[in-house]
Amino acid sequence: MDFSEALEKIREDERFKKAKVVAIQLPEGLKRKVGEISEKLWDKDLIFLGDPFWGACDIPTGGNWDLLIQFGHSEIPNLGKLERIMYVELQEEMKFEIECDRIPFSSLILTSNVTYSSKLPSIKEKLEKCGKEVILKKGDSRVFYPGQILGCNISAARGEGQNVLFIGEGVFHPLGIALGLTNKKVISFNPRNGEYTDMEHFKRKFLNQRYNAIDLASRAKMFGIIVSTKIGQTRFSMASTANRIIKQSGKKSFLVSMDLIREEELINFPADVYVNTACPRVTIEDYQTFSKPVITFYELQMSLGLVDKSKYILDEIIMTDEIGSTGVRKRD
Amino acid sequence: MDFSEALEKIREDERFKKAKVVAIQLPEGLKRKVGEISEKLWDKDLIFLGDPFWGACDIPTGGNWDLLIQFGHSEIPNLGKLERIMYVELQEEMKFEIECDRIPFSSLILTSNVTYSSKLPSIKEKLEKCGKEVILKKGDSRVFYPGQILGCNISAARGEGQNVLFIGEGVFHPLGIALGLTNKKVISFNPRNGEYTDMEHFKRKFLNQRYNAIDLASRAKMFGIIVSTKIGQTRFSMASTANRIIKQSGKKSFLVSMDLIREEELINFPADVYVNTACPRVTIEDYQTFSKPVITFYELQMSLGLVDKSKYILDEIIMTDEIGSTGVRKRD
Repeated sequence: MDFSEALEKIREDERFKKAKVVAIQLPEGLKRKVGEISEKLWDKDLIFLGDPFWGACDIPTGGNWDLLIQFGHSEIPNLGKLERIMYVELQEEMKFEIECDRIPFSSLILTSNVTYSSKLPSIKEKLEKCGKEVILKKGDSRVFYPGQILGCNISAARGEGQNVLFIGEGVFHPLGIALGLTNKKVISFNPRNGEYTDMEHFKRKFLNQRYNAIDLASRAKMFGIIVSTKIGQTRFSMASTANRIIKQSGKKSFLVSMDLIREEELINFPADVYVNTACPRVTIEDYQTFSKPVITFYELQMSLGLVDKSKYILDEIIMTDEIGSTGVRKRD
Repeated sequence: MDFSEALEKIREDERFKKAKVVAIQLPEGLKRKVGEISEKLWDKDLIFLGDPFWGACDIPTGGNWDLLIQFGHSEIPNLGKLERIMYVELQEEMKFEIECDRIPFSSLILTSNVTYSSKLPSIKEKLEKCGKEVILKKGDSRVFYPGQILGCNISAARGEGQNVLFIGEGVFHPLGIALGLTNKKVISFNPRNGEYTDMEHFKRKFLNQRYNAIDLASRAKMFGIIVSTKIGQTRFSMASTANRIIKQSGKKSFLVSMDLIREEELINFPADVYVNTACPRVTIEDYQTFSKPVITFYELQMSLGLVDKSKYILDEIIMTDEIGSTGVRKRD
């Protein structure tokens, strides 16, 4: 579905027809489409939301609009039905072919980011024709499509099988799989440049970074515990648990509630280390942008000696507080 | 009142006694006090709010806390009584003396930022002893103290009299007075370094900047109109009026709703010029940080030829939408 087809489809939606004021969230790459959107959706009062956002976990809950249209991301099912929200995914129409002989696996679990989710059934078919055994299955209730991986959820890559193939751009999603499932081999295929990447090197590099952070945290005296104000990233119970176990270890801590997590807001707080219970991606991908070590809840447990350090545990968001979970994931 | 006295006073407040979860907003300079606050207010569940904030106009309205304590700013009366908010102003205890012969005015209107509001009556007395005629009066319903100036409100400096003395640090507040009341002479006294500054030079420099922006805007074809999501900065009616008058002039425009107004969020939107209806300080003080011209509502009217350009009109926030105003100020 291209962009102008997407706008046509929006016009036909009953929720759009009923709305008077419509808010629109655009990823950076689509912000230039404001003129086209304004023309096509001319009969509504439009407000473009200018704050940065990272997906369906990041939806403003207030706002004087009747309908919010979020472009470029898929629904997160376990946030519950949000009647005022419409997701327009804009899946990738680009043509590409997987080369079977570049995938050194005879059996594999097939995954992708949301952009390529609709392509996975045909990729599965092609790989099977090459004689490979392919598992394509939906993860837990935070993901929408079979095989779909989020920056904070790799559940679709779990299960039987030693090998994972990821389709999509960027390092973060397949790195998450490699860090979360250290016993599996992970290969990433980027349809945009045709490159195949073995994640082993990245896994080692980031595990080094993480164990270094855990080591620094084990010597820290004052911890800042970050809780997100974003609807799909709030894990207050996890933060409270962190607060309790730090104090039980004879150390000090305080809670910091934030929307955007940035060095310039943290720099004047007196923590030696931050425990980030918001988006796990911030902890790992933005690690170098912070002057103090930032660790996950699971890394905190390791640093306090409460769990075995030898098996690395990836931070994933399974459920958030909005829907009544403790936000703490059971170990595999 | 020093910081530890302020904490004692908080403990005695009935709202504090009743609260279970207490949120705390600290200006950058006080973030290091987290440990002391945590010790003194040990019997409550504390959450420190990490998002940047600029005063009583910038209060989170959601949040699972019973009480929010904002340090370093005074109440904005016309936002209405917000029961869950406590303001702790921490006025400056520093000793300083005004030197009468450094003030070349025989009569003047006396003003300050909130930090020095409590000092104004004694400063008035001293200046009167030197034979000067001093007017000290409260502005409109957005300010709390006699003589108090906000970054968005200079009403306390209005009225009879050709001269204004401002007490406080920084250029922005007295610059606002000079730009808003171009027929008055403004001198600023900074108690911290003892310096007296005639605002004439700054006024000329910034008027040049503003008329340059107005000129650029008069040739623009596509306008982005920024509306704030902050409770004390939302002027939606002003933004709607801007939208209407731009379209009536045969140009294009769209509304952008934002919390933090930063170049990195605006850069991909396709506007030639932005009309900022949020904090007026952003338009003027942050002007150089944006790649596109940012103008006020009044500058927009000038650029469209709807009002006389020869008399500059400062953007001030008198009332915000929350309390039912159009947000558009009448001309002096």
